Amino acid sequence: MKVAKFGGSSLASAEQVQKVVDIIKEDTQRRFVVVSAPGKRNNADKKVTDLLLAVCAARCANEPIEALLAEIYGRYEAIAAPFKIAADHLASIHTSLQQFVTLPYENNPHFYDTVLASGEDNNAKLIAGILQSAGLPARYMNPRELGMTVTDEPQNARILHASYEKINAWHDSQAILVIPGFFGYTEAGDICTFSRGGSDISGAIVAAGLQVDLYENFTDVDGIFSAHPGYVHRPESIKEVTYREMRELSYAGFTVLHDEALMPSYHAKIPVVIKNTNNPSHPGTLITNHRDNLEQPVIGVASDEGFCMIYIRKYLMNREVGFTLRVLEIFRDLDLNYEHMPSGIDDISIIMRSNQLTAELEETLLRKIAYEIDPDELRITHDLSMVVVVGEGMRQRVGITADSTAALARKNINLEMINQGSSEVSIMFGIHKEQEKAAVRTLYYTFFD
Amino acid sequence: MKVAKFGGSSLASAEQVQKVVDIIKEDTQRRFVVVSAPGKRNNADKKVTDLLLAVCAARCANEPIEALLAEIYGRYEAIAAPFKIAADHLASIHTSLQQFVTLPYENNPHFYDTVLASGEDNNAKLIAGILQSAGLPARYMNPRELGMTVTDEPQNARILHASYEKINAWHDSQAILVIPGFFGYTEAGDICTFSRGGSDISGAIVAAGLQVDLYENFTDVDGIFSAHPGYVHRPESIKEVTYREMRELSYAGFTVLHDEALMPSYHAKIPVVIKNTNNPSHPGTLITNHRDNLEQPVIGVASDEGFCMIYIRKYLMNREVGFTLRVLEIFRDLDLNYEHMPSGIDDISIIMRSNQLTAELEETLLRKIAYEIDPDELRITHDLSMVVVVGEGMRQRVGITADSTAALARKNINLEMINQGSSEVSIMFGIHKEQEKAAVRTLYYTFFD
Repeated sequence: MKVAKFGGSSLASAEQVQKVVDIIKEDTQRRFVVVSAPGKRNNADKKVTDLLLAVCAARCANEPIEALLAEIYGRYEAIAAPFKIAADHLASIHTSLQQFVTLPYENNPHFYDTVLASGEDNNAKLIAGILQSAGLPARYMNPRELGMTVTDEPQNARILHASYEKINAWHDSQAILVIPGFFGYTEAGDICTFSRGGSDISGAIVAAGLQVDLYENFTDVDGIFSAHPGYVHRPESIKEVTYREMRELSYAGFTVLHDEALMPSYHAKIPVVIKNTNNPSHPGTLITNHRDNLEQPVIGVASDEGFCMIYIRKYLMNREVGFTLRVLEIFRDLDLNYEHMPSGIDDISIIMRSNQLTAELEETLLRKIAYEIDPDELRITHDLSMVVVVGEGMRQRVGITADSTAALARKNINLEMINQGSSEVSIMFGIHKEQEKAAVRTLYYTFFD
Repeated sequence: MKVAKFGGSSLASAEQVQKVVDIIKEDTQRRFVVVSAPGKRNNADKKVTDLLLAVCAARCANEPIEALLAEIYGRYEAIAAPFKIAADHLASIHTSLQQFVTLPYENNPHFYDTVLASGEDNNAKLIAGILQSAGLPARYMNPRELGMTVTDEPQNARILHASYEKINAWHDSQAILVIPGFFGYTEAGDICTFSRGGSDISGAIVAAGLQVDLYENFTDVDGIFSAHPGYVHRPESIKEVTYREMRELSYAGFTVLHDEALMPSYHAKIPVVIKNTNNPSHPGTLITNHRDNLEQPVIGVASDEGFCMIYIRKYLMNREVGFTLRVLEIFRDLDLNYEHMPSGIDDISIIMRSNQLTAELEETLLRKIAYEIDPDELRITHDLSMVVVVGEGMRQRVGITADSTAALARKNINLEMINQGSSEVSIMFGIHKEQEKAAVRTLYYTFFD
C-alpha cells in the first residue's frame, strides 16, 4: 500500500493531471493520494496559492476580489475541461470560493489559513472527480473526516499525536482517498495550515498513520542530484539515500523536500521515494532509514553560503569551567542560533548563519562577549560557505578525508574549518564563499566519475 | 637583564651547582636567580621535597623526624662541601629544619606549606652562600622582602596583582638576588605554596615584576622536542615556539614546563628560554609571544591518551534552540569538563578526559542525557587519543591538513574526529589509542626530516 503525493507542477494543467491519472491507474497499491494546489504552467504563470494570497490581501484592503476568484475558478475549470466529470465537483469549488467574499477577516485568526487551504482542498475535490471519470473508485476525503487534527497555531500547525491512530482507521478503505495537503483541523474545527513544505508533510503524516509500505512524492525532477547542477555539469542522480544523508544534503542547499516534512515518515520508518510525474519510469531517489549498499562511500556534495565565524581566544581558557556555557547564554539571550562550535585548547569558534545578524546586533554580540568573557582576541569572519561531503559508510573508509583535503589543496582552496567527528555521514569544510563553486566541483570529481 | 631559574636536577649535587655557578658567572645579565629544592642525583635518589613530605607525614603520625631532618641537612651539607662558604649559611639551614620538631600541625593550615617551602628556601640560602664564595655579589632574598604576596590558599596560592609593583622596586638592585621558588607570603605573613609547576611560576612572576628581557628556565634537557622521544627516534628540538604553540603542545603531553606557570610571563610579554644546565651552550627553546620565522609550518606533533567521546543524535536537533545549552548544563551539574564538541547537522559529540568518569558517574551522565534530551541515538566511545599537529603559520599553508590526513590514511589510521578551525596553530585528530604511536610517527616524518 502506498501514499502518492503530487506537487503543484504535477497538477498545474489538464495535461499534467492526465499523467497523474495514468500513474494512479498503473499501480493499484496507490490508494491514498495527497494533492497540492495547482502550480505554475510556465514561468510567467501564477500558482493558485499566490492568487489566494492576493485574495487575502485584497479583502484586508477592502478591495473587490471577484476577478481574482474568477481567475482561480478558471484554473480549476481549465484542468477539468478535457475530462467528463460530474457537474457537482465544479459547483462545489465555485461555492467554496464565493464564501471568501463575506468570510470575516477581522478578529479571525484562521482567515488566512482558511483561504489558502482552499487551494488544496478544491483541488482534491477536482482530482477525485477526474479519477472517478477515469473509472477509478476515488473519493474526496476532507482532513477533518480523515482525522488530521492539529494544534491551533495558524500558519504553523503541528499534528497531534492522536491523529495517527484516527488516520489508521482508514487502512482498509476500499476507495482511493484523495486528500488535500497543507492543512488540518483544530479540535475546535478551525482550519490551520502547516508551515513549510506543507503538502509534503501531509503526505508524510498520512503515510505514517496508515503505516504504508512506501510514500511516493511526485515532483518534476528525476530525484535528487549528487551535486548542484549549476555547479557540476549533469551530476548523477542518487538512487538511494538515508534520512541522515538527506538531512546533511538539505542542510547545505538541496531543497527537493523540506526536511521537516519528512519527520513523520522518519519516525514511522517509512521509505520515501522522490519521483518525476513527467518521467514516471525513472526509479527516482529512495529515502530510507538504512541502506545496505555502501559500495559508493560518497553520495553527494552539497554547499551553502551565508555563514560567519566568531573567534574567541583566551590564554588558559579551557581550564575555566562553564566558559562555553557563558558564551552560549549570550547567544540565547540575543535569540541567536549557532551551527557549529569547533574549539582549540585556548580558543573557540562559533559558526552561525549571517542572516541572523544586523550590523547593530553584531556589535551588541561582540560587545557582550568582550565584556563577559574578556578574551585576549575576538574577531568575526564574514562570507563563509559550508561544503559538505555526504555518505553513509564514509566512516568505515580510511582516506575519504585525505582525498577530500588533497583535492581542495590542489585547487588552492584554504580551509577555515573542518568539521568531522560528530556526524558519521559527512565531513564539512568551511571555506571562503568565492571558492565555494570550485570546491564543490573538485570534490564532486574526486568521488564521482 | 635576565631572571635565571634552576630546577631540582640542576641543584641536586655540588657538581651540578658548580655548573650553575659557571652559568651565572658567564653572563652579568643574570641578576635574579630563582631556585628549586635539591632534586634527585640519580634514579634511586629522593628529592628533598619528598623527604619534607615524609617529615609532614611523620609529624602527623607522631613519629620521630630527627633522622629525616638529618638526611635533609646532609643533602645541603654535601652540596656545600667543595665550596668554601661562610658557616652561618649551613647553621641557618640547620636551625630552620630543627623548628619542624615543634612546629604545631594541628589547626595550622600552613603546616604543610611551611615545611615544604623550606626545601627551596634553604636552598636559596645555600646557593647565595656558594655564589658569594665564588666572588659574586649574591644575596639571599626572602619572598616576603621581595614583595611576593599571595592569596591565603594553602597549596594553591595565587599571586596578588600588587606584588608585581613591589617586586619591580628591586629593579636596580646591585646584588644578584637568590630567590627561593614555589612559595610566597600571605598578607598576614603565612607561607603559602603555589600548586603545580611551583618554582617555574615564581620565576615567571619575578620576570614579569622586573620586566626583564628574558626569563631563562634551566632544566636537564636541550629544550623542547618536536615529538615524544619514546615515539620518534631522536626528534629535532624546537628553536622557537610561541606561547600559543606551547599551549597546544603541553595540552597533549609535552611537560617540560607546566603551562599555568607561564601565565605571568605570557601576560607581561616576556620571552622564556628553556635551557640545559648540563649543556648551556645549546641555544635551547625560546618561547615568545610572536615569531617571525614561519618557514617550517609545523613545529611539533604531540599526543595524549585517556579521552572518551559521547555521541548524541536526534533528528532535526539543530532546529532546537538551546539544545547544546541543555547538554552543557548536565555537564556542569555533574561537575564534568568537556574538551571539544564537534557537531553535525543532527548530532553532537562531546569529547572529555576519561579520568573524570567512574563507571557510576558515566551511567548517571548517560541516563541524564537520555532523560533530558531524548535522543534517537546515544553512545560512548572509550580509549581515544588526541594527536595534535602544531605550528604558527599552518593556517597560511594550504595542504597541511591534506598532507596529515593522507599520511594517516596510508597507515590505515581511522579518524574518529578532526578538529580544525578554531585554533590557528593546530589540527587535532581523534584516533583509537592503539594507533597513537603510529600516528605520531607518521605525522612527524611527514613534516620533519
